[in-house]
Amino acid sequence: MGLLSSVSCWTATISVLVLCWAGVCLGVPDPSVRDHLMQEEVFRQVGGRVLLTEPERRLSERLCELKKQEMAGPQFPPAMHFFKARPFIRRSPIFNLLQKMPKGRAALHIHAASLVDVDWLVKNVTYRPHCYVCFTQDKSVRFRFSTQQPLCQPQCSPWILLETLRRKMGNATDFDHSLVQNFTLFTSDPEAAYPSQEVVWNKFEKTFSAISGLVRHAPVFKDYLYEGLMQLYMDNVMYVELRTELPETYELDGGTHSKSWCLQTYQEVNQKFAAQHPDFLGARVIFTVHRNRSPSQVKEAVQNAISFRKQFPEVMVGFDLVGHEDTGKPLWYFKEALSLPMNMGATLPYFFHAGETDWEGTEVDGNLLDALLFNTSRIGHGFALPHHPVAKELSRKMGVPIELCPISNQVLKLVSDLRNHPAAVLMSEGHPLVVSSDDPSMFGSTGLSYDFYEAFVGIGGMKSHLGTLKELAINSLRYSSLSPQQKEEALALWQKKWDKFVCENL
Amino acid sequence: MGLLSSVSCWTATISVLVLCWAGVCLGVPDPSVRDHLMQEEVFRQVGGRVLLTEPERRLSERLCELKKQEMAGPQFPPAMHFFKARPFIRRSPIFNLLQKMPKGRAALHIHAASLVDVDWLVKNVTYRPHCYVCFTQDKSVRFRFSTQQPLCQPQCSPWILLETLRRKMGNATDFDHSLVQNFTLFTSDPEAAYPSQEVVWNKFEKTFSAISGLVRHAPVFKDYLYEGLMQLYMDNVMYVELRTELPETYELDGGTHSKSWCLQTYQEVNQKFAAQHPDFLGARVIFTVHRNRSPSQVKEAVQNAISFRKQFPEVMVGFDLVGHEDTGKPLWYFKEALSLPMNMGATLPYFFHAGETDWEGTEVDGNLLDALLFNTSRIGHGFALPHHPVAKELSRKMGVPIELCPISNQVLKLVSDLRNHPAAVLMSEGHPLVVSSDDPSMFGSTGLSYDFYEAFVGIGGMKSHLGTLKELAINSLRYSSLSPQQKEEALALWQKKWDKFVCENL
Ligand SMILES: [Zn+2]
Ligand SMILES: [Zn+2]
Repeated sequence: MGLLSSVSCWTATISVLVLCWAGVCLGVPDPSVRDHLMQEEVFRQVGGRVLLTEPERRLSERLCELKKQEMAGPQFPPAMHFFKARPFIRRSPIFNLLQKMPKGRAALHIHAASLVDVDWLVKNVTYRPHCYVCFTQDKSVRFRFSTQQPLCQPQCSPWILLETLRRKMGNATDFDHSLVQNFTLFTSDPEAAYPSQEVVWNKFEKTFSAISGLVRHAPVFKDYLYEGLMQLYMDNVMYVELRTELPETYELDGGTHSKSWCLQTYQEVNQKFAAQHPDFLGARVIFTVHRNRSPSQVKEAVQNAISFRKQFPEVMVGFDLVGHEDTGKPLWYFKEALSLPMNMGATLPYFFHAGETDWEGTEVDGNLLDALLFNTSRIGHGFALPHHPVAKELSRKMGVPIELCPISNQVLKLVSDLRNHPAAVLMSEGHPLVVSSDDPSMFGSTGLSYDFYEAFVGIGGMKSHLGTLKELAINSLRYSSLSPQQKEEALALWQKKWDKFVCENL
Repeated sequence: MGLLSSVSCWTATISVLVLCWAGVCLGVPDPSVRDHLMQEEVFRQVGGRVLLTEPERRLSERLCELKKQEMAGPQFPPAMHFFKARPFIRRSPIFNLLQKMPKGRAALHIHAASLVDVDWLVKNVTYRPHCYVCFTQDKSVRFRFSTQQPLCQPQCSPWILLETLRRKMGNATDFDHSLVQNFTLFTSDPEAAYPSQEVVWNKFEKTFSAISGLVRHAPVFKDYLYEGLMQLYMDNVMYVELRTELPETYELDGGTHSKSWCLQTYQEVNQKFAAQHPDFLGARVIFTVHRNRSPSQVKEAVQNAISFRKQFPEVMVGFDLVGHEDTGKPLWYFKEALSLPMNMGATLPYFFHAGETDWEGTEVDGNLLDALLFNTSRIGHGFALPHHPVAKELSRKMGVPIELCPISNQVLKLVSDLRNHPAAVLMSEGHPLVVSSDDPSMFGSTGLSYDFYEAFVGIGGMKSHLGTLKELAINSLRYSSLSPQQKEEALALWQKKWDKFVCENL
């Protein structure tokens, strides 16, 4: 990427303008000053300083044309709720290009439990033998694989073999469809189904509980991860960092596995997947704990994270707190636990969710600054960052990127029209940024392409171009936890695929 | 207002942090650094450097407490559509305080044709004699005062005397209610009534056509203006700048008056109102033309504006273009006309609407930069400004404030949840800002207090306090078109009222 020294040209234009402003050329803009300032604004945005080759420039123009058509259409998908926009996005030629784009891009913010398309869970996992189901009082489901009838769960109906139940129900399609409803937030009328953040978060957490018994079954756990990597790979993603609490997995006989077993499994699945797909760089783990835990529980989790990182340096990259920020404890509440690594002289990179809130100036809204003070490596969401000029400046100076997950923010009701997403401010300022999909299976947005579409068409508007996409793709490797040497190799591999993509889509 | 030299303290904390970041104190934030940075963020926002007296500090704390309660409630009005939020806002103790606040504040962005509560139009104006009404094909109404049956209008039913019609209809309450529907956008289910910006703008423009025949009747014109000043005065506003095309007014016999007559009338009504309310500073005029006019028509309007300013220096303050930006021509299209004053060596302050759009990077989105290059005195809305870092910097350096009209932006569907209004970015950065109400009668938001409520509670969040309100009130005088001496007098008058307000509401 070639950098243009825009700082000096900016200073020059300002001085011209101050003259104007002082009355010398008041009210009659010099067209060259105007061009200069417009150019300066173009330079500042994400991708604004990326030098494009001639073929790239042509592809970029094509994208621009397509975007104009999309904006002129009767439906502008980024202005609609994703659940309604999805069919339109699928038909969009821009989306089709983004799918093919060898994004080389890494998915840096995905929760492991929401990685794989729910259809796979229903059609593959729930059809396996020994799968029991029960129905909870709050109209959700629980699953358990077991060779014998599992013990009763409180507030749940007696366990019944899923196979038996499905046969009894007659219409398997309808039955499977009813299962899907429990595994995803997706619905045709989201405004009616989710009138408030509270309601949608409630359903969101219920969904995780519903799939828990499926994905924690040890053999499923392995297959789920493999399938997840495959879906990302098919979407032209080459690396992923997954946030996970490393759940307790279990066997048919009721025996359970520790968190270490999970990490071990990640390593094995990575190796297996890489053997078949040598251009995929694997999955790494950001170990998480729920922010509704006590300070001592969080402390224990931090200690675990430190030792996991020593045991599994290849897959275990850092630590985060998860759960609804607005209703959970702020980072500062756990300051003792979070200071532990430093006080112990240990290294534990942080990847904090912070600023995933509409509530400005509250205690929780302080998470952004605290995440930076605890030296976070990236910020999950950072939705509120533009409201915090000091934290924003620090984030930029420290090179701490925002993990932007547009569809997640819309579905969880932080914003409705994505043209108003605060990241538009960050993009226009060239803030360090990566795009990710948070919980693609819960949102019905497999892979990364849907979120790239929203970021490129909705948040970036007419200003974003191929340079923006290129910078976002490169950012996802630059800000990953890969080692400098791995990054270099990954970039070289990505560049090859990218050039091929550009040539093929002119 | 005392200013704290925060620049140096900011530099100091950055250097501490860079040390931390370089590894010296990595991951263990020094609480004093944290406090420092939090304080710095507090300083930067609008009102952040306002020194509060002891009574002010106490009132501010009270407001904070009230705001916390409002945020904890089941309904948070700024997150709702204003039409649904209004009853909740009316019950809010914060709103009641804001109503009483001798805002001293000036209303700098109101369109004259949407100044007076529609109830007054119906209950007062439509009950006057000689009022004829006709019904248009697109289900709107037209009015005409006339001693004899007016000539037929194309696409309108024959004229009927309103008096006769009302008598025929039997139930005057229902009939009057049906008239109100034509005069305002207000409705109980705005989401259903206005599914898109296009639909809401269509209805918006129809509303102006509907009331046109009423307010252009010369005697009504005078009363309307007087009533408008009274409503602002009752809302503790002490000065207003009205945008108006200076419409052709007419008499009962069909005779018409020129634009000069309007300006003359403004002067007279001001004098009459001031005689009865010596603490009101009057209304001034920003002459406007619709942006769907041709370049030569705009040129003529600019020329008129220049000569009106010479003729009526006391009421005529500047020029603006109005109408839907997205569907209209950009400012640059009129560059010749807008360069006229400078080329003629004349002075004509501009007050351009700019950036009232969600469409980033389009031609219309360029209005912000162009407004500044044409040396605008203020920016109407500037909704898109945070997406334009260069224009934002210029606006700040040139001391050009944004006229923030939150309810207008929400009703015209630029943003839904006002916590996401882009002005939250500007407020957090201490950007020059005034609050206004754009078209209060169309939106059902008489005066300024509703918009102040949305800005203070919704956009400012927990961060805004009494200092914010104080700075916004002072800004409205500082950035007005009053002369330096008038400003000084106005500020002194305001300060007295303000101190009284603080004492009375502790
Ligand atoms: Zn997340
Ligand atoms: Zn306006």
